[in-house]
Amino acid sequence: MRGDDFVPKRIPEPMKEFEVRPDPDDPRLSVTVPGIDHEGRAVETAVVTERPLTLFLNAREIVTMMTIGDRPDLLAVGYLLNQNMLKGDDEITAVEYEEDISTVVVRTRRQTNFEDKLKKKIQTSGCAQGTVFGDLMEEFDKVALSPSAKVKTSWLYQLTKKINTAPSLYLKAGAIHGCVLAREDKPLLYMEDVGRHNAVDKIAGYMFLNGIAPEDKIFYTTGRLTSEMVIKTVKMRIPVLVSRSGFTAWGVELAKKAGLTLIGRARGKRFVALAGLERIVFDADLGQAEEEDRKHARKGSHADAMD
Amino acid sequence: MRGDDFVPKRIPEPMKEFEVRPDPDDPRLSVTVPGIDHEGRAVETAVVTERPLTLFLNAREIVTMMTIGDRPDLLAVGYLLNQNMLKGDDEITAVEYEEDISTVVVRTRRQTNFEDKLKKKIQTSGCAQGTVFGDLMEEFDKVALSPSAKVKTSWLYQLTKKINTAPSLYLKAGAIHGCVLAREDKPLLYMEDVGRHNAVDKIAGYMFLNGIAPEDKIFYTTGRLTSEMVIKTVKMRIPVLVSRSGFTAWGVELAKKAGLTLIGRARGKRFVALAGLERIVFDADLGQAEEEDRKHARKGSHADAMD
Repeated sequence: MRGDDFVPKRIPEPMKEFEVRPDPDDPRLSVTVPGIDHEGRAVETAVVTERPLTLFLNAREIVTMMTIGDRPDLLAVGYLLNQNMLKGDDEITAVEYEEDISTVVVRTRRQTNFEDKLKKKIQTSGCAQGTVFGDLMEEFDKVALSPSAKVKTSWLYQLTKKINTAPSLYLKAGAIHGCVLAREDKPLLYMEDVGRHNAVDKIAGYMFLNGIAPEDKIFYTTGRLTSEMVIKTVKMRIPVLVSRSGFTAWGVELAKKAGLTLIGRARGKRFVALAGLERIVFDADLGQAEEEDRKHARKGSHADAMD
Repeated sequence: MRGDDFVPKRIPEPMKEFEVRPDPDDPRLSVTVPGIDHEGRAVETAVVTERPLTLFLNAREIVTMMTIGDRPDLLAVGYLLNQNMLKGDDEITAVEYEEDISTVVVRTRRQTNFEDKLKKKIQTSGCAQGTVFGDLMEEFDKVALSPSAKVKTSWLYQLTKKINTAPSLYLKAGAIHGCVLAREDKPLLYMEDVGRHNAVDKIAGYMFLNGIAPEDKIFYTTGRLTSEMVIKTVKMRIPVLVSRSGFTAWGVELAKKAGLTLIGRARGKRFVALAGLERIVFDADLGQAEEEDRKHARKGSHADAMD
């Protein structure tokens, strides 16, 4: 996408179920590798690809990320947004992906506030990556999440079932994270990546470029509910965060501070909620709710998508 | 540790089994948080702590890490080593941890080569974090791993059993990664952290500060065998990398290139090896090898320690 061609496609809401979903048959995203098993027998194993991608904001080199490489444009924009390097009012004029040199450049009409800060910082005491964190926390304190948003337990059970059974690179090759943007019981955007933070950032990039409203959405992730995950979700203004994994103490503390509903260890009919409890509506008939079956439980593969 | 006090303790080899191991009873490392479960009942859940830690190399701010915070000194030194910011011949004069301001400063006798590069880089095109990657890959190409090292399947089965059943924060609270340095069937150093890369870096820091030889060691991790993990293991000169998780394609490619033995999906008696197959000795009696029992399998908690 270059210069004048850069007109983000606007997706009318409500989006349809699985508007974006994994494509496990894309030959660029996994390869079959020969090896041996525990008895010394020859086996062939599907493994997901992982590529370096160096991100530039205008003329400035920001970071080299390891990614599956399916949506460098969304990843680039989402990363910059979630790191506070790009603000909602920055106007993107181009996102240029150069596959042969593994780079993606996000261009803005004016120099961003972040570039300006980076310049000042470099003139004083060096690399500014460390200052990003302080900026993020400052903004975090000002966010107000939708107080009227609700999450029904019946939605949660439908959502996790649909996500676990949808064709995915996870089911094909394992060792990959998944993040899903959902509304009520409908998964809308399902992104996978070798890095969980990449899957989140791709959803953030998609939401920004397509003007998707966050207030009525639910964010689902396979990864742990760490401070990073909570900060990103709050930054995206999504009021409910759900994971099949566990919590960290600071993740819980930050979620309470921001009024984010934090639901973890969501597997089958079980879950634990540690913040924003007032949004949860217990409407599901637990007798009807299913335990996860073994095939889709991701159980046999704990940590298979760990980072 | 400051100035003249900085005399790393030398651990005589062979180290004893679990020379360093998790301390799940350390009150600083986990807290109990109230919440509700899927039926709306009040529950209390143990969650691991997670703290920001800002790392300085001499006067230069490098990065803010999220860590459980048990060994900031080892984490700081290991991070700098594994990022190639500190070389084997740099002389560390102090590692200063200031708990109240969450910073750790690693001081060296002379300015490091990295600081020198950073200075040049900043004068030209900005933040130098991105150049670290190129440096790492350049060094990677020159490494030769021990050709005589072996790994017996009987060791693997003993190792994973000992690791899975050792008291740990994982068994207490979940949502945490573990890395283990082992020799034959003996786990020597078992470090846990909210970030898998932190657990690896703490082991690298320990090995450097105590002069531990890498050639006869095995590295075990709960995380995926990504390019980052392979690069770090090769950088540490350890010839065998084992994980209970899966692979990425680039991780496998890099392992082949470096001659690293790469064993994944190691659970119970099963595993898959995709590189360095010539080091594997199939000596275990598979009839005797046990499948993982449910309590220690980490199975119920896939992704519980995902990053």
